[in-house]
Amino acid sequence: MNEYVIYLAPALGILGLIVMAIKSAWVKKQDAGDKNMQELAGYIADGAMAFLKAEWKVLSIFVVFAAALLAYSGTIHEINGKEIHGSWIISIAFIIGAVFSATAGYIGMKVATKANVRTTQAAKTSLKQALKVSFTGGTVMGLGVAGLAVLGLGGLFIVFLKIFNVVQVDSNEMKTAIEVLTGFSLGAESIALFARVGGGIYTKAADVGADLVGKVEAGIPEDDVRNPATIADNVGDNVGDVAGMGADLFGSYVATILATMVLGQEILVKDNFGGKSPILLPMVICGLGIVFSIIGTWFVRIKDEKSNVQNALNLGNWASMLITVIASYFIVMWMLPEGDITLRSVTFTKLGVFMAIVVGTIVGAIMSIVTEYYTAMGKPPVNAIIQQSSTGHATNIISGLAVGMKSTVIPILTLAAGIIASFYFAGLYGVAIAAAGMMATTAMQLAIDAFGPIADNAGGIAEMSQLPPEVRERTDNLDAVGNTTAATGKGFAIASAALTSLALFAAFVGIANINAIDIYKAPVLAGLFVGAMIPFIFSALCIQAVGKAAMDMVQEVRRQFREIPGIMEYKAKPEYEKCVAISTKASIREMIMPGAIALITPVIVGFTFGPEVLGGLLAGVTVSGVLMGIFQSNAGGAWDNAKKSFEKGVMINGEMFYKKSEPHKASVTGDTVGDPFKDTSGPSMNILIKLMSIVSLVIAPYIAMNDAAGAGCDSMKSKCSTQMDASCCHTEKMPSECKMEKCATMTKAECAKMCDESGCDAAQKAYCMSMFGADGKFIGAKCDMNKCMKMSKEECAKYCDSLKCSPEEKEMCLKHAGN
Amino acid sequence: MNEYVIYLAPALGILGLIVMAIKSAWVKKQDAGDKNMQELAGYIADGAMAFLKAEWKVLSIFVVFAAALLAYSGTIHEINGKEIHGSWIISIAFIIGAVFSATAGYIGMKVATKANVRTTQAAKTSLKQALKVSFTGGTVMGLGVAGLAVLGLGGLFIVFLKIFNVVQVDSNEMKTAIEVLTGFSLGAESIALFARVGGGIYTKAADVGADLVGKVEAGIPEDDVRNPATIADNVGDNVGDVAGMGADLFGSYVATILATMVLGQEILVKDNFGGKSPILLPMVICGLGIVFSIIGTWFVRIKDEKSNVQNALNLGNWASMLITVIASYFIVMWMLPEGDITLRSVTFTKLGVFMAIVVGTIVGAIMSIVTEYYTAMGKPPVNAIIQQSSTGHATNIISGLAVGMKSTVIPILTLAAGIIASFYFAGLYGVAIAAAGMMATTAMQLAIDAFGPIADNAGGIAEMSQLPPEVRERTDNLDAVGNTTAATGKGFAIASAALTSLALFAAFVGIANINAIDIYKAPVLAGLFVGAMIPFIFSALCIQAVGKAAMDMVQEVRRQFREIPGIMEYKAKPEYEKCVAISTKASIREMIMPGAIALITPVIVGFTFGPEVLGGLLAGVTVSGVLMGIFQSNAGGAWDNAKKSFEKGVMINGEMFYKKSEPHKASVTGDTVGDPFKDTSGPSMNILIKLMSIVSLVIAPYIAMNDAAGAGCDSMKSKCSTQMDASCCHTEKMPSECKMEKCATMTKAECAKMCDESGCDAAQKAYCMSMFGADGKFIGAKCDMNKCMKMSKEECAKYCDSLKCSPEEKEMCLKHAGN
Repeated sequence: MNEYVIYLAPALGILGLIVMAIKSAWVKKQDAGDKNMQELAGYIADGAMAFLKAEWKVLSIFVVFAAALLAYSGTIHEINGKEIHGSWIISIAFIIGAVFSATAGYIGMKVATKANVRTTQAAKTSLKQALKVSFTGGTVMGLGVAGLAVLGLGGLFIVFLKIFNVVQVDSNEMKTAIEVLTGFSLGAESIALFARVGGGIYTKAADVGADLVGKVEAGIPEDDVRNPATIADNVGDNVGDVAGMGADLFGSYVATILATMVLGQEILVKDNFGGKSPILLPMVICGLGIVFSIIGTWFVRIKDEKSNVQNALNLGNWASMLITVIASYFIVMWMLPEGDITLRSVTFTKLGVFMAIVVGTIVGAIMSIVTEYYTAMGKPPVNAIIQQSSTGHATNIISGLAVGMKSTVIPILTLAAGIIASFYFAGLYGVAIAAAGMMATTAMQLAIDAFGPIADNAGGIAEMSQLPPEVRERTDNLDAVGNTTAATGKGFAIASAALTSLALFAAFVGIANINAIDIYKAPVLAGLFVGAMIPFIFSALCIQAVGKAAMDMVQEVRRQFREIPGIMEYKAKPEYEKCVAISTKASIREMIMPGAIALITPVIVGFTFGPEVLGGLLAGVTVSGVLMGIFQSNAGGAWDNAKKSFEKGVMINGEMFYKKSEPHKASVTGDTVGDPFKDTSGPSMNILIKLMSIVSLVIAPYIAMNDAAGAGCDSMKSKCSTQMDASCCHTEKMPSECKMEKCATMTKAECAKMCDESGCDAAQKAYCMSMFGADGKFIGAKCDMNKCMKMSKEECAKYCDSLKCSPEEKEMCLKHAGN
Repeated sequence: MNEYVIYLAPALGILGLIVMAIKSAWVKKQDAGDKNMQELAGYIADGAMAFLKAEWKVLSIFVVFAAALLAYSGTIHEINGKEIHGSWIISIAFIIGAVFSATAGYIGMKVATKANVRTTQAAKTSLKQALKVSFTGGTVMGLGVAGLAVLGLGGLFIVFLKIFNVVQVDSNEMKTAIEVLTGFSLGAESIALFARVGGGIYTKAADVGADLVGKVEAGIPEDDVRNPATIADNVGDNVGDVAGMGADLFGSYVATILATMVLGQEILVKDNFGGKSPILLPMVICGLGIVFSIIGTWFVRIKDEKSNVQNALNLGNWASMLITVIASYFIVMWMLPEGDITLRSVTFTKLGVFMAIVVGTIVGAIMSIVTEYYTAMGKPPVNAIIQQSSTGHATNIISGLAVGMKSTVIPILTLAAGIIASFYFAGLYGVAIAAAGMMATTAMQLAIDAFGPIADNAGGIAEMSQLPPEVRERTDNLDAVGNTTAATGKGFAIASAALTSLALFAAFVGIANINAIDIYKAPVLAGLFVGAMIPFIFSALCIQAVGKAAMDMVQEVRRQFREIPGIMEYKAKPEYEKCVAISTKASIREMIMPGAIALITPVIVGFTFGPEVLGGLLAGVTVSGVLMGIFQSNAGGAWDNAKKSFEKGVMINGEMFYKKSEPHKASVTGDTVGDPFKDTSGPSMNILIKLMSIVSLVIAPYIAMNDAAGAGCDSMKSKCSTQMDASCCHTEKMPSECKMEKCATMTKAECAKMCDESGCDAAQKAYCMSMFGADGKFIGAKCDMNKCMKMSKEECAKYCDSLKCSPEEKEMCLKHAGN
């Protein structure tokens, strides 16, 4: 059955989509409430669709243009005498990626705008039923995203293997197939960026605008039907938190798997899958992750009104993660071969690969827990903000900023430890597979994430329809849980983005044919500086866009209150659609500039300064983007919950304060500042760093160094010339001919032939032959010269003697030993 | 006279100190006003001294402890069989650096607390006289700092040359002398960190505390004599903006010169200064910079009440910078030798060195101009904040944060271009000398910076003494100019810190014996992440400290209003000294933690993970520190001036708003948030990145790689093993013996001997000999093999033929040519 494993991933993707369709049908079948509720829900659904259509119109122009550029680039087969393994088919992959990403967002939003009102209706009866409807809505989104991603990647991979007639893993055809596949990821990630940024601007512009005039000026509660911006606000939850988040995680998911595949393609192993096991592994794990996510959803259920919703969600989440980790052990053991696996001169075993997956899961878990600590009600950070609210707006802001900055410490240390540990266990492949392991339960993560805005919307509809308070109470319960899961989801997303970027970074280095990214070189350091600056300007543009769009909204709401008499007395209906149109227009206008920066900067830097400087740029973007992402998301979350704490009353210096008190007003200021932080610029950092990495990966073949040996020679030469001697710089090109490692996928006869033809010397040939058993089968080197690299000459000699290596083998080993 | 050049720098330092003494005496001679004014000034002076004494008490413990540690480290002469050129004398250098730095702060503060009241008195007669007194006070500070720095560095260098019997530049004795000299810089920079952070916390705690209770709760104006915290507030201007800033720039100045000296020591040239010209050059330029700064102060004068003070200061500033650049041309041409100069295989000429100085000056100028643009009244960024104040506190904060983030773009692009350009002109020496050129006019810069707080204090004394409004008007005029110069000064400081850090970074790489800092390696990348996080936690600690200390202050002021009857009716005097004590205690308590992070992190990372990971950490700190520094300083400055704009009234949507309007209140919130940003955490970033670089430089010998060739071998080996061939990795150690470049400082006979003894082959020896003229003098290679490095083999052959190179020379050249 081993040859059918390649079909496993797309098959699991289809399975996910089938389950999704069933759950989606179930949601639709639920009672949608009375006519009034349905009308309100209709406004929201229409508004959301209007935004999607407007967004797609702009994006389709971009997609056509970018696809044409990619198709053209695919026709270039040589630059400066260097072969490029591209194909115009990358443009097709790009378009499919873009369409799949948009579809993932569409599915999520469609079901969310149906589930919201049905959750409200269900909340009339019980909390249990309300949770069931809203969480099922979220599950549809999760399964849609994960299913489409695995189906798309897995399916295209099969198609491309056929199209390019790939026979061997270590072939130019395979390189082409994988490089074309990056187009799929590029398409997905580009759409994700615009969806995230556009959606983020939309939701916060509507939210801030609605609050500033409605709550503050007109003194009407949130989600009041009289507020012209209230529908836009609820639409925003859908386009930002559902569609934007969906596209974001779709992009992450695809990018992570792809990066692991790119690195896997470089690994040469003799396995039962035609040498493809390192390429297929991430797809299989993520495909099975869909199944385990479905199992996890079974745990999300509560008994009665008093049950803890948060615990139910946590149980489902941890269950699916735990099952995935356990299952990965068996998958890894089954798919990867025994013995040493080597990638870029780092050697590891399949147990190491499994350990890297464990590391990834632990990193993800710690990131989630830390995020929750820094943003949850009742914990010291949020309490500190509450205390400082007593001395006014300014001290509230100062303490929120301090909390956000402090919250970077543990995540960064965790991430740094995770990088070192996963690299230690399985080299760069370990870093990539750690990210993939973390992302395997994306379906479950996303179900939990998407459930929040559905519950939020359900509450909004309850308020607008003036339903009895116990309904709102139930939806508020769900909404509060949704806020916490949204925060932990963000911690998870940023961790996965960071690891994914590192994996993409490693893949980029390989394709660009560079041996190092040396920040000691002036231009590389300059690239690092410029890269680190980009998250700052990107954040500034996002924040500013929200400010501008919110101002537009404020003017429009004020105009309606002024010009339409009777709104406040429920006698006239506000013109909701005008507010929706303003948010739509503003967000689409404002998303262009940040998007362009992310897409164009790597292209300009790459083609002007070459791959190493681009590498510096990417490192700068990644490091600074992760920090700014954590800082902004957590500061925003903490401010939000500091404000929410006033609803039940807080004690400051022995005195109780409630809503409408002075400290509460200060906390509202913090929340408003935090809104664009946590829902626009903060989460955009994820996509920014991934998208820039993928763009770099796509252009890598065109800016690649002439060849690895040459690059090595250059850098050696500069070292040698420090010592003003040239003799050490002469031999570096010659040896690349005798590729002993190729023997791993050859028969003994083929290997012997290769040795003779490509000028291996006697010792090398003897070493090659020693890797084959008596039956002519490849068994790997008994006396492994790679192991000697970490030994001194004496240790290596001892090692060789203990294994009874032949003189030729010993010679080869000793050549590799240290001094 | 050439052998006396080494005495030029300390002599110029002494000259600066003499001029300082004269100016200081002049200030003291001025009329100090009536008894009431003198009493108030006395409170301020006493408070400032009390802080300094308390600070020194804590710091002396630290200095003794650190000196003991350094002395001990100086006794280690071997680690892992590797020689270390340290000496216990480094502890003496450290103590002298610390004492000098503290003295620089003391001098500045002493004169500032005298000049403030005398400026008030002078302002009774004319603006012209008030400017003269306050600017002369600033000049004393500037000359004190620059004079002490040049005297200390230059003097110690002479002493250490004698102590260690340095004969040759390229000797272990010289290495020891320079490494011991880094102790001076470490001492200076450590004190600077504590002075900057402690002073920054002090000044803002007092400021925020005084404002929150005084202005907001009690409704009395700023600097009202009834406010118990008002003296602490005025003391804060002196300890933060004068002593803190002075110690900061003292540290930058010393570190910049030192980093250039360290790199200069690696350059081997045949000049008229015993090969020392690259080491002496930065000291000479900075020494002469003192003279040019004195000349610049002559331009700072105005005619009458209507004269533009800003223009007068700008004229003085640009004049001294211009003269310095012009003079550098002649100094460089005089000191450096003709022909090629080589540092770490990069070749440049003395014209390149001059061009690098020009680049540094341009970078500094652009940074100042951009900072002014983003923070000045009437410019679009500040206007945007004003407009957004109309919708409340939150939008004011949001737009301020966006302005701060956006303001990083041009400075970073400038810095990146500056790095590339200065490196292009003169390699790493170029980067360092660019910073030195920029810092040459530190005396002038600091005079302009220190003038601001003196004017601010003068205004405070005028207000407290209830002098007639025209006095306050004159001091306000000076104060407003002072705010702008403070902002540009910060832009300048951050640019110099960035370039200095890069120079220190380069020096570190040299001493740590590593060839590259490759962020493609997992642990180095992890180091980069952790490094980039440090400015975030450092900022958070600083901001939080201000918040905490301000709360203490608020409680105390409230207590005094409550418990001391008659304060508000001027019948009872507030207990000023209690507020001073609170600020002092809080700031000293809170400065420990951030200081410890800066000092200890590099030590832990360096000794645990080695020099390359530490390099990654430093890069992370530098990049993120520069960004956070610019972001915070500029956001704070912009908020401040947005608030100030309301004093004269601003137009928002066609309506005029003044002080006490709602938008003004929002702008006050922004200003309060900005206070710790721009005066505590923002400017601390400078010192943070420099101090961590210097600590790394000091520990570099103890964590250095065994030898450069070995490190090169390792990295070559990993490259080779990718191709599974060992033959290319065998020759890398041998060649380090034949150091042909050494011949540059030898006679022909010595060179021949060296070639014979150290195993140069025939071609190498012939090449060496070809570098000497018929008279036996070194003339450099006619057929330069370094030039061939950038040529193809054919081009190189042509080049050799055209120069009629001998066969041996041609062979050497061809060995270095590309393929």
